[in-house]
Amino acid sequence: MHSREPVTSAPAASVSAYAMRLGDDRLVLGHRLSEWCGHGPILEEDIALANIALDLIGQATLFLKLAGETEGKGRSEDDLAYFREAVDYRNIQLVELAKGDFAFTIVRQFLFDVFSYHVLEQLQKSANSEIAGIAAKGFKEVRYHVRHSSEWVLRLGDGTPESHDRTQKALDQLWRFTSEMFEADSVDREMAAAGIGADLDAIKPKWEAVVRDVLTRATLTIPADPPAMTGGRKGRHTEALGLMLSEMQIVARSHPGAEW
Amino acid sequence: MHSREPVTSAPAASVSAYAMRLGDDRLVLGHRLSEWCGHGPILEEDIALANIALDLIGQATLFLKLAGETEGKGRSEDDLAYFREAVDYRNIQLVELAKGDFAFTIVRQFLFDVFSYHVLEQLQKSANSEIAGIAAKGFKEVRYHVRHSSEWVLRLGDGTPESHDRTQKALDQLWRFTSEMFEADSVDREMAAAGIGADLDAIKPKWEAVVRDVLTRATLTIPADPPAMTGGRKGRHTEALGLMLSEMQIVARSHPGAEW
Repeated sequence: MHSREPVTSAPAASVSAYAMRLGDDRLVLGHRLSEWCGHGPILEEDIALANIALDLIGQATLFLKLAGETEGKGRSEDDLAYFREAVDYRNIQLVELAKGDFAFTIVRQFLFDVFSYHVLEQLQKSANSEIAGIAAKGFKEVRYHVRHSSEWVLRLGDGTPESHDRTQKALDQLWRFTSEMFEADSVDREMAAAGIGADLDAIKPKWEAVVRDVLTRATLTIPADPPAMTGGRKGRHTEALGLMLSEMQIVARSHPGAEW
Repeated sequence: MHSREPVTSAPAASVSAYAMRLGDDRLVLGHRLSEWCGHGPILEEDIALANIALDLIGQATLFLKLAGETEGKGRSEDDLAYFREAVDYRNIQLVELAKGDFAFTIVRQFLFDVFSYHVLEQLQKSANSEIAGIAAKGFKEVRYHVRHSSEWVLRLGDGTPESHDRTQKALDQLWRFTSEMFEADSVDREMAAAGIGADLDAIKPKWEAVVRDVLTRATLTIPADPPAMTGGRKGRHTEALGLMLSEMQIVARSHPGAEW
C-alpha cells in the first residue's frame, strides 16, 4: 500500500522538519532585519528594510504553521516561534549573526536573497501543494528583495573608499557561512527525491554564478574559501541566536497565549 | 491683487508649518509603533503593528517632503526627520510618550486613529492638491488602522480582569493628552479658513462620539477631564521625545547623506 501512495505522502515528520528549516531561516533573518526598524539611514530605506522584514516574517509564519500541522503535536506557528530554545531552531547560522552595520546587513541579505530566490523558484512546483502555495507567494516577494539587495551591494561596493571597505569586510566575515546553505542532509535528500523539496546541488552553481557576477561588478573580492561554518540545521548555533531569541520571545513568554 | 488669488495661495510658510505637524505626528507615532517590531505577543499582531507603523512613516515622509518643498530652505524629508532637535518637532505630546505595554500602545493608537481618520477624511478635499493627494492615500490606510485598534480596545477592555485593568490604566494615563489634538492655533485657523486644513472644531464632537462609544462598549471608564497636557505644536515636549529622537537619528547623523 505505502509504495503506491503519491509522492506527496512522504513521512509527515520529514515534511515538518523541512518546513521548519524554511520557516526558521526566514523568521530569524526577518527578525534581524526588523532590528533596523526606525534606525535606517534614510526614511525610504527604513521603509524598504521593514517591508522586506515583514515579507520574511510572513513567509516564516506560513512555513511554521505547516511545520506545526504536519508535526502532529498540536503546536501552532506561535508556539514554534516563541516557545522553542535556540537548540531547537533549524536555521543556518548565516541568518542569526548580529545585525552589524548597514553594509553587513546588505551583504548578508544579498547572499541569502539569491539563495532564497532559487529555492522558492523550485518550490513553486513542489509536490506538496501547501509548500508550492507558500513558495509562489514568497517568490514574488524575493524577486524584489534580490533586486533591492543587489543594487545596494553595487552601490556600496563600488561607492566611496569607506563604503567599499565596509562592504568588503562584511563579505570577508560572512563568506564562510555561505556553504551551509547547500549542505544536503537526509531530510533534504528525501524531500528532493519526493519532488517536495528543492535540489540544493542544482541550486549551488546558479547561486554562485549570480553572486560572483554581482560581487565582481561591485569591485569586491571573493574570499578564498575557508573551512565552512556549519551545524545550524542540527541545532548548533552561535551565541547570537540565543541572545536574539531571548529578546524576541520575552513578551510572548510573559503573556502566554497573549492572554493577561 | 493678493485678495483675488485663489484660496490655495495661502502663505507658503503656513502650508509648510501645517504639513510639518501632520508629518511629525505620524513620524513620531510610527516610530513608537515600530519599536514593537519583532516584540509583539503573537506573529500575526507583530506583522499588523509593523504594517501600521510603515503606513504612518510613509504618510509622514510625504507630508515632510511637502513641508520641506513649501518651506523653501532646501530641506528634504530626511533632513527634517533626522536633523531637527526635539524643540523643532511639532507633533502633539500624545504620540511621543514611551511605548508602554501592549494595552498602552493600543489605546494610544485608537485615540489617534480616530482623530487621524476624521482629519484625513476632510483633507481629501483640501484646496491644496498635494495635501489632498496624501490624505486620499492615507485615508484608505487609516480606515484599516481604526478598525484594528478599536477591535483590540474592545477585546482588551472587555477581556480578562487583568487586560481590563491594564487598558483602563492606559486610558487614565493617556486621556489628558487628547485635548491637544483639537487646539487650533493661528496656523490651523488660517489653513481651515483657506480650505486647505481640517476644521478641528467640527472634528472634535465626531471624535468624542466614536471614542465614547467604543470605550463604553469596552467597559472602560472615561476619566474626568483634568487640565490638558499641551505645547507640542510649539515645540514643548516631554523627555520621551528627545530620547526617542537620539536613537532614531543616530545612524543618519553618523553617516550624513547615507554616504560613508
